[in-house]
Amino acid sequence: MEITKLQLQKVQERIEPYIHRTPVMKSRLLNEITGTELWFKCENFQRMGAFKMRGAANAIMSLNEAQRKKGVVTHSSGNFAQALSLAAKSLNVPAYIVMPESAPEVKKAAVRTYGGQITECPSTLKDREETASGIEEKTGATFIHPSNDLDVILGQGTAAIELLQDHPNLDYVITPVGGGGLIAGSALAAKYFGNNCRCIGAEPMEADDAWRSMQSGRIETNESANTIADGLKTNLGDINFPIILENIDRIIRVSEEEIKSALRLIWERMKIIVEPSSAVALAAIIREKEQFSNKKIGIVISGGNVDLERLPF
Amino acid sequence: MEITKLQLQKVQERIEPYIHRTPVMKSRLLNEITGTELWFKCENFQRMGAFKMRGAANAIMSLNEAQRKKGVVTHSSGNFAQALSLAAKSLNVPAYIVMPESAPEVKKAAVRTYGGQITECPSTLKDREETASGIEEKTGATFIHPSNDLDVILGQGTAAIELLQDHPNLDYVITPVGGGGLIAGSALAAKYFGNNCRCIGAEPMEADDAWRSMQSGRIETNESANTIADGLKTNLGDINFPIILENIDRIIRVSEEEIKSALRLIWERMKIIVEPSSAVALAAIIREKEQFSNKKIGIVISGGNVDLERLPF
Repeated sequence: MEITKLQLQKVQERIEPYIHRTPVMKSRLLNEITGTELWFKCENFQRMGAFKMRGAANAIMSLNEAQRKKGVVTHSSGNFAQALSLAAKSLNVPAYIVMPESAPEVKKAAVRTYGGQITECPSTLKDREETASGIEEKTGATFIHPSNDLDVILGQGTAAIELLQDHPNLDYVITPVGGGGLIAGSALAAKYFGNNCRCIGAEPMEADDAWRSMQSGRIETNESANTIADGLKTNLGDINFPIILENIDRIIRVSEEEIKSALRLIWERMKIIVEPSSAVALAAIIREKEQFSNKKIGIVISGGNVDLERLPF
Repeated sequence: MEITKLQLQKVQERIEPYIHRTPVMKSRLLNEITGTELWFKCENFQRMGAFKMRGAANAIMSLNEAQRKKGVVTHSSGNFAQALSLAAKSLNVPAYIVMPESAPEVKKAAVRTYGGQITECPSTLKDREETASGIEEKTGATFIHPSNDLDVILGQGTAAIELLQDHPNLDYVITPVGGGGLIAGSALAAKYFGNNCRCIGAEPMEADDAWRSMQSGRIETNESANTIADGLKTNLGDINFPIILENIDRIIRVSEEEIKSALRLIWERMKIIVEPSSAVALAAIIREKEQFSNKKIGIVISGGNVDLERLPF
């Protein structure tokens, strides 16, 4: 099914009351270091601290009244759990959140603050899916996948839409690649709202399933995912992968050292708190700076929810 | 000598090309927590990461051509060292910086990056003053005090001027109190640019020299200063103290625990990196929240230069 520009515009319009139009920051020093001109779309300043608020709001708004009454359920190790909780609260909808026991305490506490009802389970995908299914059956809530859901994808794309509305002449939009929702939505935004703008993904070498998926043409998984970019460990899905395959030029892989170094640059130079996942996009530009020389690049800073007790510095 | 509004306007105008007009941020969550409406003037996003850039630029611009050729010298444990170095570089003036050997490495490195020529010395005030005097004699450079200098004070006041230009109806402007330059300049800004706006200071209990000075009517010193707000350990001076005495209603003192807790709130909730000194102002509001209930308050976030290896979390 072909997505249209009109669809994206309608999504942007309907979620607007529930999200912040986040600021776009620049850094003279990071421009000098990279030899490019960078615009950072600061979704770390988004409500609940990440772009995931956008997709969550849009997904809930696509439900009918009867569905909304019964609520929504998801499994998420972090940001989407908070996003769905807060979006649901804003729209007066119950939210059931399945979280791995191992999730950072700061994220569990945030979900509770936003009114989400947590069910903990072991951290395997199988356990999470089974627990979520049980809640669906019991409550009649609608399952909303954090990334492999068309309404979520279109919602996530609105960050890049805003960025391109503010700065229409970007050559590239670069985003980290986790479950594929952000990159798929951003690719559609670049296609319809850019002026010959290309969308590129950035991924940790330690969790390069999307890079391998682009090579093989089918969804690959990570056997291990030993990366500090903990938002990027998940695989692509059958809804976002075709969009990615069709619209993304390439995915750049970076090492853990490169991620840490880029993270430090953002914290120290820009004075903003971003998640390690957000630093992956800057790391990709630094790694391939010759290719990006003098280009105008938008970076989607995915979020800023970090556990201050467990910093990589 | 009475300062006039025109003087402040001229300072704002002349330093404008050398500084950023920093953004003002809000936080729904911090408004809820404090029961006030807060506007954060984000000088952590200022060039070199702190408001001190303003005073440094203004002080150098007040020198004549012959003086500029010979350069400027100061002693500073941190931000003013960087500020004077960068302002001097921007204005093609040599900068000699006396720094205590114990200053954080990240701050020494920044001074070097900005072109400042560092001379290290023991950290006592006497050693710092003697070393700076030696450089003055040898080079003919002009000594510029980090806080007890009228041009510096007027420069620092421009942060609050901008804040009040953006938000004219603030009831209060609150700043941390260290050497007294920021609070004195902000008090003048509130007087001339506010609409019945009062300026209040915030200080660590562990370095409450300014609070005691307000009580006694003379400049008091700290025998010890065991605070994480390391920018606030210094004493007031004979130039800024009269301005403070005349224009500041009161100084609120806060504990180390209160500073850490406010720091954490700003990092976690606002996703911005600020120095512990900057958190002192928010801590003061939280400590006396009944008094500030429903007030509109501007907070000058003094800076964001922290050593990521030595965080208090």
